[in-house]
Amino acid sequence: MEHPTLRIGLIGTGRIGQVHAASVADHPAAELHRIADPFVDGAQALAARHGGRPTDDAEELFTAGDVDAVIVASPTPTHVNLIARAVEAGVPVLCEKPIDLDIARVEELRPVVAGGGVPVALGFNRRFDAGFSSVRDRVEAGEIGRLEQLSIISRDPSAPPADYVGASGGIFRDMTIHDVDMARFFLSDIVEVQAIGSQMFDDGARQHDDFDTAMVTLRASTGALVTITNSRHSSVGYDQRLEAFGPDGMLQVANAPTSLVSLSTAQAVEARPPYQDFILERYAEAYAAELDAFIRLARGEASESPTFEDGRAALILADAAQRSAVEGTRVAVDLS
Amino acid sequence: MEHPTLRIGLIGTGRIGQVHAASVADHPAAELHRIADPFVDGAQALAARHGGRPTDDAEELFTAGDVDAVIVASPTPTHVNLIARAVEAGVPVLCEKPIDLDIARVEELRPVVAGGGVPVALGFNRRFDAGFSSVRDRVEAGEIGRLEQLSIISRDPSAPPADYVGASGGIFRDMTIHDVDMARFFLSDIVEVQAIGSQMFDDGARQHDDFDTAMVTLRASTGALVTITNSRHSSVGYDQRLEAFGPDGMLQVANAPTSLVSLSTAQAVEARPPYQDFILERYAEAYAAELDAFIRLARGEASESPTFEDGRAALILADAAQRSAVEGTRVAVDLS
Amino acid sequence: MEHPTLRIGLIGTGRIGQVHAASVADHPAAELHRIADPFVDGAQALAARHGGRPTDDAEELFTAGDVDAVIVASPTPTHVNLIARAVEAGVPVLCEKPIDLDIARVEELRPVVAGGGVPVALGFNRRFDAGFSSVRDRVEAGEIGRLEQLSIISRDPSAPPADYVGASGGIFRDMTIHDVDMARFFLSDIVEVQAIGSQMFDDGARQHDDFDTAMVTLRASTGALVTITNSRHSSVGYDQRLEAFGPDGMLQVANAPTSLVSLSTAQAVEARPPYQDFILERYAEAYAAELDAFIRLARGEASESPTFEDGRAALILADAAQRSAVEGTRVAVDLS
Amino acid sequence: MEHPTLRIGLIGTGRIGQVHAASVADHPAAELHRIADPFVDGAQALAARHGGRPTDDAEELFTAGDVDAVIVASPTPTHVNLIARAVEAGVPVLCEKPIDLDIARVEELRPVVAGGGVPVALGFNRRFDAGFSSVRDRVEAGEIGRLEQLSIISRDPSAPPADYVGASGGIFRDMTIHDVDMARFFLSDIVEVQAIGSQMFDDGARQHDDFDTAMVTLRASTGALVTITNSRHSSVGYDQRLEAFGPDGMLQVANAPTSLVSLSTAQAVEARPPYQDFILERYAEAYAAELDAFIRLARGEASESPTFEDGRAALILADAAQRSAVEGTRVAVDLS
Repeated sequence: MEHPTLRIGLIGTGRIGQVHAASVADHPAAELHRIADPFVDGAQALAARHGGRPTDDAEELFTAGDVDAVIVASPTPTHVNLIARAVEAGVPVLCEKPIDLDIARVEELRPVVAGGGVPVALGFNRRFDAGFSSVRDRVEAGEIGRLEQLSIISRDPSAPPADYVGASGGIFRDMTIHDVDMARFFLSDIVEVQAIGSQMFDDGARQHDDFDTAMVTLRASTGALVTITNSRHSSVGYDQRLEAFGPDGMLQVANAPTSLVSLSTAQAVEARPPYQDFILERYAEAYAAELDAFIRLARGEASESPTFEDGRAALILADAAQRSAVEGTRVAVDLS
Repeated sequence: MEHPTLRIGLIGTGRIGQVHAASVADHPAAELHRIADPFVDGAQALAARHGGRPTDDAEELFTAGDVDAVIVASPTPTHVNLIARAVEAGVPVLCEKPIDLDIARVEELRPVVAGGGVPVALGFNRRFDAGFSSVRDRVEAGEIGRLEQLSIISRDPSAPPADYVGASGGIFRDMTIHDVDMARFFLSDIVEVQAIGSQMFDDGARQHDDFDTAMVTLRASTGALVTITNSRHSSVGYDQRLEAFGPDGMLQVANAPTSLVSLSTAQAVEARPPYQDFILERYAEAYAAELDAFIRLARGEASESPTFEDGRAALILADAAQRSAVEGTRVAVDLS
Repeated sequence: MEHPTLRIGLIGTGRIGQVHAASVADHPAAELHRIADPFVDGAQALAARHGGRPTDDAEELFTAGDVDAVIVASPTPTHVNLIARAVEAGVPVLCEKPIDLDIARVEELRPVVAGGGVPVALGFNRRFDAGFSSVRDRVEAGEIGRLEQLSIISRDPSAPPADYVGASGGIFRDMTIHDVDMARFFLSDIVEVQAIGSQMFDDGARQHDDFDTAMVTLRASTGALVTITNSRHSSVGYDQRLEAFGPDGMLQVANAPTSLVSLSTAQAVEARPPYQDFILERYAEAYAAELDAFIRLARGEASESPTFEDGRAALILADAAQRSAVEGTRVAVDLS
Repeated sequence: MEHPTLRIGLIGTGRIGQVHAASVADHPAAELHRIADPFVDGAQALAARHGGRPTDDAEELFTAGDVDAVIVASPTPTHVNLIARAVEAGVPVLCEKPIDLDIARVEELRPVVAGGGVPVALGFNRRFDAGFSSVRDRVEAGEIGRLEQLSIISRDPSAPPADYVGASGGIFRDMTIHDVDMARFFLSDIVEVQAIGSQMFDDGARQHDDFDTAMVTLRASTGALVTITNSRHSSVGYDQRLEAFGPDGMLQVANAPTSLVSLSTAQAVEARPPYQDFILERYAEAYAAELDAFIRLARGEASESPTFEDGRAALILADAAQRSAVEGTRVAVDLS
């Protein structure tokens, strides 16, 4: 008999692992059952707050026999093995992006996932944001006609530590990967990529031969064009906007205000407080919706969870952007 | 034979007379023919700029026989006699508001105008503002259903000189009169008035026992309610807003921006420069449209010019507001 | 020894009682301990969801000796006795507005509360709304200079059932009471009230000789004026706006959007979905903050909870508005 | 002795020539003196409206000896010869963009202009738009720190006739040329260009192997990046936006509204009428300011008129965009 709530095993208790733990604890159809982190203190702290059994060994989650689904929020280099292990154990898995920084390892894993018959979801949380997903639904419904241009602006509040930059695989694989997935949310079949990057302000980027400022253009097989504007900092708050343009109009997603109050004076009118500044706060509801979709996926129900294939496609596009930025050529991609 | 352009005589060359002179000069179907001001320098200066024959004697305009219509922009105490004279001479007249500060004189003039068969228009320029008039048209067209509430905010950029306040007849007859006319533009049959005023900042108001801050509420015979918010100053620029509310929604007129530019920083986002600060600038196009309507009226064509009756009604309402503010009672009015 | 969490007794399990129950369950420093409702089913249902012991007898909460504070969310006619009982029992109480529909009963209770030494808070939840309270703080901080005009727009999504209208004490005591309290949040010493009401659309209002549409003007002892615009319906969603105006500018609270998405087409640009429609949703965070302040009050800590005196003042103002609307006179009030 | 007003000769009486004629007629320091068009009817019509002597022979303007400056608004292929002729005749010239579709002819003309000592201005009118130029001034003043990213959105109301497309030199030389000049208004030293184009909707573009949809990315020598989004149609009205982003914030230019009115209903709130639809209307004031700057240039005064060098640079960038779009490579440019 199926357990009444989905017993979830969480691997990794860093910032994003904590978000998932809280989402699971809040979800009426799930419970946090086991929590693994080699730094067992983190697992114990989360267990104390949200329930579940802490361990320093992720393998326990697969052998215990009482975990119905796992969420992988551990460091990127562990993802491929954990996904493979989950598939082997027949346990549905939601894995944070990216699958890996090395596309070769992803391609190797691909047939395993494809043949495993086990649901594998990727953590592209922005697809679950109420604004972005409603625009996508309305575009699909034909509200602005056939999509011709998509503009995505994504600027983080502030640059990460230099060490993080060094291990991140570069701005395209670390940050832009969310935006290329958002592009594919609207236009799944991207065929060309061109990108350009700059070092404008961040020492970490300079140190690690990375960019802090980037612009990417994509072409879909439909001919539609996508522009992505990225920056590692934004003094006005987390800058997350999108504009879908078609023959019949446009749909725009504005930044999230932090207040309904505006001030008007002799110097300036209708001035509002800065936008929401924290990523987890901006997408809090999206994370909850992401979990909800994954629970449905794990239960074998209809689900809009992004898949392993979406994770692979996003990495291919990020790799292409990196290559285009460095080599100065437009890069053709085949996501099939 | 009718003169190909309407030959206009202008009486009064103060600030508002200058606006009318420029409007006439710009209008393809009119010309500034004669200009009268006891301070003949003013008339000469306007004539030099826009054409026309200057004089210090307004009577000349009626005796010369070559003036097709007059615009009265002289001080309020002269209005009644000039309207009467125009009617007597059979010359269509556009007179600035108010007709007079004394309703008794207006009532005396009323049968003269009614029986004269000569078009008399009143200078309620805001009726010709693109924003206000389009909202009124859309309300009439039923876009928000039957009008239930009307909110008018009207705040001047800064208080007038104390002398002006002393001669103005008070805030209700001087300033609110525009707003009660705007109320009647939407709801012509106002039946009740209540008002309250304060002295908050202006020495001129204090000196002359007037208010610098006021709120007026009106009830129409339909039951619809109107609120008017007035202030003699506004640091954000000329504050001219309106909101029409009905069962099916609301139509709002925002303040006029001076720029398309906004600034976002870590302190405040989407801040725009202050609103238009000058009354004549804010309503420049409205004055032109007002003249255009008057020209059609003078030519015997269909015209939306406010009439003598509108001027009388506005004064009755302003008087009622004054009485209500002083006596603390709601005042019933009969505009018929 | 003080119990580690505040054990709260809830009286009344209707719509607003349910909101309080959920807020208490979510609050880390409180627990739902006892729940009373003569319809014990309601109490049992809430207990099952949020914990606590159900009863059909409110008196149990005062005799059991294990309730640290009570929240009164029962029908208005019960409020006076329950507050008196709580004071007698020495149990801090948060009571929903209004204290009573009869000011005589309130005046009778007043010395009991004043002499009782027991904290009594009134449920004016809007004071805890992030937008309104930040504007009030900024006005107090002098950001726009001395407050001259305050505009409050408050329109409910739709008219209540006719029965509710009949028992409500009329629009001023039922709905406007929130707005006069909001006025007092900015300008505590109101000295004059004038009001006007209409029957425009609601059969319930017509049946019970009440208004569905109203406008109220207040004057504070500082001379500042307040306008309140009320309607029992609003097709655009719950309409809750405020504008504070002073010599140095204005602070405005906009309606709460339901989405960050806007649509632009050849017909209209920047169109957004309607505002939040449900009162409890609009003020969800305000209810939580209200509870938080009450917990601090009950613990003897500094608290911004509105008091019995605020509840009395609001009723005096609502009564004055009712009288003014009916009699057509401005009503002087003394809130001391 | 210098003529009191600048006597202007106009060459070309098409749509843009008519705009210049009206601007000259309105300018207090200029007069329309001679008007040339091989279709002399056009010249005669303009002369009738705005004054000046019509001719079918542009050469007359240079030989008559009474023309102080010329404005060239004739078809593109005539520009090079007319600029050369003006320089030879010592007559200051304002020429519409582009100088030519063939950069070789521009390079040939370059030393002639450089050595001629005669002011040559290019008609990049958008530099004179109040919004764009104030943002540029504020960026220069350091209001958002060092410029890091510039986003330009430029969408025409509707696609031109197929014939026009065929003769236009392609979308980059015809339309984007304005946007690359705008980029250079902020970042004069552009060093890299990449572009991508699509055929999404316009038969004219398809017929002439052109694009109707394009995105261009530029890099300045400072490292700053620019994105340009172009479309040949826009159902919401003429879409002209700009966003300058730096470490201390961003400055944005919004589209020009056609009304201050918004409509809110149960379907959508704050909906406004579409944006200004006509290019000449949107930039009417910019054309006047452009003329004003040219008059100062012609008089030897300080002037912000874009120069021949700006015209050459814009064409080089447009050519590079065309090449990048077709060949798929990033193109390095040297504008020195």
